[in-house]
Amino acid sequence: MMYVTRREHFSSAHRLFNPEWNDERNVEVFGKCNNPAGHGHNYYLEVTVAGEVDPETGYVVDLKQLKEVIIHRVIAKVDHKNLNVDVDFLRGCIPTAENIAIGIWGELVEHIPQGRLHQVRLYETEKNFVDYRGES
Amino acid sequence: MMYVTRREHFSSAHRLFNPEWNDERNVEVFGKCNNPAGHGHNYYLEVTVAGEVDPETGYVVDLKQLKEVIIHRVIAKVDHKNLNVDVDFLRGCIPTAENIAIGIWGELVEHIPQGRLHQVRLYETEKNFVDYRGES
Amino acid sequence: MMYVTRREHFSSAHRLFNPEWNDERNVEVFGKCNNPAGHGHNYYLEVTVAGEVDPETGYVVDLKQLKEVIIHRVIAKVDHKNLNVDVDFLRGCIPTAENIAIGIWGELVEHIPQGRLHQVRLYETEKNFVDYRGES
Amino acid sequence: MMYVTRREHFSSAHRLFNPEWNDERNVEVFGKCNNPAGHGHNYYLEVTVAGEVDPETGYVVDLKQLKEVIIHRVIAKVDHKNLNVDVDFLRGCIPTAENIAIGIWGELVEHIPQGRLHQVRLYETEKNFVDYRGES
Amino acid sequence: MMYVTRREHFSSAHRLFNPEWNDERNVEVFGKCNNPAGHGHNYYLEVTVAGEVDPETGYVVDLKQLKEVIIHRVIAKVDHKNLNVDVDFLRGCIPTAENIAIGIWGELVEHIPQGRLHQVRLYETEKNFVDYRGES
Amino acid sequence: MMYVTRREHFSSAHRLFNPEWNDERNVEVFGKCNNPAGHGHNYYLEVTVAGEVDPETGYVVDLKQLKEVIIHRVIAKVDHKNLNVDVDFLRGCIPTAENIAIGIWGELVEHIPQGRLHQVRLYETEKNFVDYRGES
Repeated sequence: MMYVTRREHFSSAHRLFNPEWNDERNVEVFGKCNNPAGHGHNYYLEVTVAGEVDPETGYVVDLKQLKEVIIHRVIAKVDHKNLNVDVDFLRGCIPTAENIAIGIWGELVEHIPQGRLHQVRLYETEKNFVDYRGES
Repeated sequence: MMYVTRREHFSSAHRLFNPEWNDERNVEVFGKCNNPAGHGHNYYLEVTVAGEVDPETGYVVDLKQLKEVIIHRVIAKVDHKNLNVDVDFLRGCIPTAENIAIGIWGELVEHIPQGRLHQVRLYETEKNFVDYRGES
Repeated sequence: MMYVTRREHFSSAHRLFNPEWNDERNVEVFGKCNNPAGHGHNYYLEVTVAGEVDPETGYVVDLKQLKEVIIHRVIAKVDHKNLNVDVDFLRGCIPTAENIAIGIWGELVEHIPQGRLHQVRLYETEKNFVDYRGES
Repeated sequence: MMYVTRREHFSSAHRLFNPEWNDERNVEVFGKCNNPAGHGHNYYLEVTVAGEVDPETGYVVDLKQLKEVIIHRVIAKVDHKNLNVDVDFLRGCIPTAENIAIGIWGELVEHIPQGRLHQVRLYETEKNFVDYRGES
Repeated sequence: MMYVTRREHFSSAHRLFNPEWNDERNVEVFGKCNNPAGHGHNYYLEVTVAGEVDPETGYVVDLKQLKEVIIHRVIAKVDHKNLNVDVDFLRGCIPTAENIAIGIWGELVEHIPQGRLHQVRLYETEKNFVDYRGES
Repeated sequence: MMYVTRREHFSSAHRLFNPEWNDERNVEVFGKCNNPAGHGHNYYLEVTVAGEVDPETGYVVDLKQLKEVIIHRVIAKVDHKNLNVDVDFLRGCIPTAENIAIGIWGELVEHIPQGRLHQVRLYETEKNFVDYRGES
């Protein structure tokens, strides 16, 4: 068993708010992340695939293919976008790092070329990141 | 002569467009940076002060004081904000890294506690950054 | 289940020695880390909290609250301090990265605002770090 | 239980190809990594040792000793070398990150000074890395 | 006057030797960099362009265009290549960081889309880098 | 003309205070850096040498030789030391980043193997660094 990770990058705007709450509660809970005109981040995404090493190639997964899947199914949808309004797989959820990671997991889990999806790590900043492994 | 640099961070949304152009030209020039709902970045700001070392303190400038000035005059105005609409010193300009750096220079140049402002470096991403030294 | 990590920083002095040993054995075991007047590091601390995502906030834990707890219970006690003499929760132990991590775990484990403490990672340098999960 | 990690670095050339395949299939599978005259990387190696903290030293493993083992058994054999031709423990395998990590595990697993080898992480670039824990 | 920098990456093999010297002198001067089968690096290239900010775009140079030039004229020629044998603009020179930087300068200086080439910085490793400004 | 930089690292303790002042003024000026038992940092040192490229070697300066000089004349004296008491070239000065950089310049300027010393950059933390070029 081997774990192979590919790192990609995207730059997005977002705003944290719960549309079912009034402004006061949104400010109280989300603080400066609730700024009405939004803010943004350079996100770093690390996708980890687990599997056995193919003796013919020495690969668990061909990273060229994995990169293409990540670009096609995730980066193209979120890079230079607003996560509150532009992204189909985030529709209807508050775009916290947690929810973005769950959405990315859903985009990737059935499209890994070889091996199986093990973990999605998402850095919102150098100081904040989340890990999701599809566990409930 | 010694150069002392302090690094700070802010996270902001922005959109690049020239209001005097039609949509077609904006897309042609600014590409994905013209996304109508915006995108965003984790910016890193490096402020460099030049001066002589004070023999009593061993300092060119007290970094605690320099940090306070940068936080008060720049970071508090741009962090978790939208650079197109929320920032007084960027009013009326396209918020490219170049223009943000010029705006930050203007905010700081007369408020350096000791020494003189030498350079503003602004990283928009790991791969793109600008340096401004107040030269015309 | 989601894992959320917050990174903080502190700068401290320390000296490695066992008061029950003579100087010779201390030098033999701890080498240059035994320098009598001490040395120091920029430590990076990564605190990971595990939990379920709250559907109302999209958070496992409010990072503003988690940050406050880390600052109040750890950083304020160790930053710009000498880990051999200034820190209550390290009293009586040799301040190796291992022991500092255990001490930090003890400071945090009952004060996590939501979710539960999963891991403390402590970087002593870029090249040396430890992970502690409260396992015995 | 505590996990202690030491990071080291080496710079090597390699070329990916399977000698049992013809050129066409090698190019198809390995793409630009199949360049006949090779290419190279700055590799970063993170070796993690698990164990209990020795109450007399505060150490799981003496990092000075662990570093010596890593340097002696791995770095000295791969640094400033060609991984296809110069390295005894990679003889006969395609030097992908996966296979290099397995080879390094084999070099280290019986030579850890204290504790036991838990994981070998190998970064080929900032964007590609693998983790191996000796699991089959 | 503003300085704009774009960072790109390439992975290459090389070997340092002077074909006019015997093996003994090559080993004496170039040490482990003289390994007959070569070694390699992840190079980071920072290209700095100087110019005035265009008031219509807020740009000194369109980084999309600058990136394309760097990719087309440099990265495509050196990435996943052997710098001793595969690169036209390095033919006949010893591929030290110094000589690679001079070669890259020559590839770019007449092809900068706006502004003028100010500096080429080349990182061979985190610990070794060179700056070239076309000065003689 | 080419600029070649070598980066090295050291870990040290220090305390900022002026022995000619009373405690109150020391605290007022140096704040938490005045902690009586000291604190410490992982310092990164970047030494830049300027010179012409030797056509026979492709080098401005042999980095193996430059590294040896930096290790011998600087790192061996400051690494795992207390900068207030253990370092001959800092005797009698307040060990701010500025004064340490000036001290390191003095140690190196007459011992550069080829070329001439151009700049000493010293990072005290990721957020604070100084540049010294021997200018008065």
